[in-house]
Amino acid sequence: MKEQVPIDLIAEKDYKDKVAKRDKESLYYEGKAEELSLKSTKRFAEYHPNPSKSILTGITFAHRDLESVVQSMAGEGPWAVISGLNPSGPLHFGHKQIFEEVLWMQKQGAEVFIPITNDESYVVGKVKSLSESRKIAYDKVIPSIIAMGFSPEKTHIFVDSDYPDLYNLAIDISKHLTLNKIYKVFGFGENKEDENPGTIFYRGGIQLAQILLPQYEEFGGKRPSVVPVGIDQYPYILLARDAALKKGFTPPAATFVRFEEGLDGKGKMSASRPGSAIFLTDNLEDAKRKIKSAYTGGSPSAAFQREHGGVPEICPIYQLRAYHFPNNDGLKEQCATGKILCGECKKQATDEVSVYLAEHQAKLPVAKSKIDKFLLKKPIRSILTK
Amino acid sequence: MKEQVPIDLIAEKDYKDKVAKRDKESLYYEGKAEELSLKSTKRFAEYHPNPSKSILTGITFAHRDLESVVQSMAGEGPWAVISGLNPSGPLHFGHKQIFEEVLWMQKQGAEVFIPITNDESYVVGKVKSLSESRKIAYDKVIPSIIAMGFSPEKTHIFVDSDYPDLYNLAIDISKHLTLNKIYKVFGFGENKEDENPGTIFYRGGIQLAQILLPQYEEFGGKRPSVVPVGIDQYPYILLARDAALKKGFTPPAATFVRFEEGLDGKGKMSASRPGSAIFLTDNLEDAKRKIKSAYTGGSPSAAFQREHGGVPEICPIYQLRAYHFPNNDGLKEQCATGKILCGECKKQATDEVSVYLAEHQAKLPVAKSKIDKFLLKKPIRSILTK
Repeated sequence: MKEQVPIDLIAEKDYKDKVAKRDKESLYYEGKAEELSLKSTKRFAEYHPNPSKSILTGITFAHRDLESVVQSMAGEGPWAVISGLNPSGPLHFGHKQIFEEVLWMQKQGAEVFIPITNDESYVVGKVKSLSESRKIAYDKVIPSIIAMGFSPEKTHIFVDSDYPDLYNLAIDISKHLTLNKIYKVFGFGENKEDENPGTIFYRGGIQLAQILLPQYEEFGGKRPSVVPVGIDQYPYILLARDAALKKGFTPPAATFVRFEEGLDGKGKMSASRPGSAIFLTDNLEDAKRKIKSAYTGGSPSAAFQREHGGVPEICPIYQLRAYHFPNNDGLKEQCATGKILCGECKKQATDEVSVYLAEHQAKLPVAKSKIDKFLLKKPIRSILTK
Repeated sequence: MKEQVPIDLIAEKDYKDKVAKRDKESLYYEGKAEELSLKSTKRFAEYHPNPSKSILTGITFAHRDLESVVQSMAGEGPWAVISGLNPSGPLHFGHKQIFEEVLWMQKQGAEVFIPITNDESYVVGKVKSLSESRKIAYDKVIPSIIAMGFSPEKTHIFVDSDYPDLYNLAIDISKHLTLNKIYKVFGFGENKEDENPGTIFYRGGIQLAQILLPQYEEFGGKRPSVVPVGIDQYPYILLARDAALKKGFTPPAATFVRFEEGLDGKGKMSASRPGSAIFLTDNLEDAKRKIKSAYTGGSPSAAFQREHGGVPEICPIYQLRAYHFPNNDGLKEQCATGKILCGECKKQATDEVSVYLAEHQAKLPVAKSKIDKFLLKKPIRSILTK
């Protein structure tokens, strides 16, 4: 018989590992903010009369130049928010987190532009054809966005393939860039010459055109804007701010969010690892199953966890509950002090998610019928005629 | 007093230089044809009941896969010709030479597609904005093309910026390519990373989409096609043939023309050296001036030229007259045997060009009024919906 490692020793090592993971993540975000000279959102949260939940909780942990929209937020002029995604799968709770933030910005007066980048899904190899990602966009992504409560008057959604006027803006902008600059900013490695030309043009043209879109004459001209993104999207912000100066636009501000931890504990929630995410179109059984088998910040030993508590900061279940559902303000402490264990917490999470999914999915048929009211179709001609 | 070099020695050296230039050019084209495994057009000229002047005279000196359209040329099915240009300036006689060939193909039954690549003019830096090259396209280029006699029923002209549906085709095609392949095929040098993303996407996407355009469902589907080009455009043909196989299309054939010599004797006739070209929109005085000061295959000594003749093969005036104007079949021999000298030849060239320009320019107002009948506007949707 092999000697068993005592459960207490296993639990202690597990706890230490999780604390180390928490500290490492915290350092990662702090380090990134410092490296990129971003400002903390804390000061903004103190001074804003009604900060978003994401800013209050530090999920939106840093920003670049958010000062530039403060006056507009206070009602002194138009401003825009640009926030898109590549439709390689349905919307999940990681996307929902960002779009809740965008919704808050819309309530502060922003006009919202949502590019659905089905061309990106294709060039980076997440789908087999433009038509595949285009179909996901209309069937799964756009209805869920609409069902979240955006206003049709102040929200403009477009699927890149169906809005090819972007091409002219992208060509115009790309002339000011070099491959070398793109390689550096995105940190392309040795295999950079294996990239396809579409990926390069997407990064050095199309994506930047999307970010600057609200400032073209057709959409009201130069004005402050914000792009809420994950920290990995920083290169786009950098390039878009450079491009804005070249075009005589206002450099767009950005807010940076922490990634929502995937349920598999293997990185951020992502459509490319379906087990990592709860999609807003998941059926209840699938959602329950994913929650039940989710990685957590808890311990393999209930006794140990009661004594030492869990590590909520790295727990996808904690993040899901604390961010997406109300009345969970005390959860962090409950977890960290061992007052709630993972079984109970997952049970409550399942209830919360089930209610949300049922309500959300009930709204989808109406949302689908309204898609046309949200679609941006305005031809972009000013750049061609002067 | 410095010793004068006798005029006979000067004339002899000049003659030798010109003969050497002729032989070098001839070897260049032969070498290119061999290097790229192109076939000579001689056999085609023998067998075709009505070959074009360009093929008969060897200006169209080589081809790739022209056999693939022979049956269609004989009336056994639809075929297409794709021939465009970047509108950094008005149409000149070098363009006219290619479009005469395209006209001949239209008379053999081809449906003609003419992309006016104002995006290319911009990304390669020949104009300052998309709007500048777009304006030249409509003001100068398209009217001249129409005035050459194309049929509105079988000719489809489009300016890239006004036909951004190309973007989706280009993105689709570009996925099958790598930067490395583009670098190799086009022979990019050490500074390749200074290229802008638009140039790369144009070469590895947009241009290929244009060549394959007639084979998309909207335009009749898979069929033989020909692209008449200068030999420097070979990389596009190679990439387009590869892309055709990936899309299940017929690889496009190509005919290759010798460049028309610039009037300045410094390379091919080109809008980027205005002195090198007679533009179809030049006023008569400018045209006369350019001809009068043109480089020729003649000698600085009239006596020498009467005895030894000129070198017509490298002479822009000879090329202009022999290709563009009838009744000049004997000119080559007259020149080579010294029976006609440059002064007289230039005078006749001036007369011929003046008559042509006057006639051509008289047609432009009507041609301008017809532009809309030639423009391709059909949405390209098939690639997005299946």
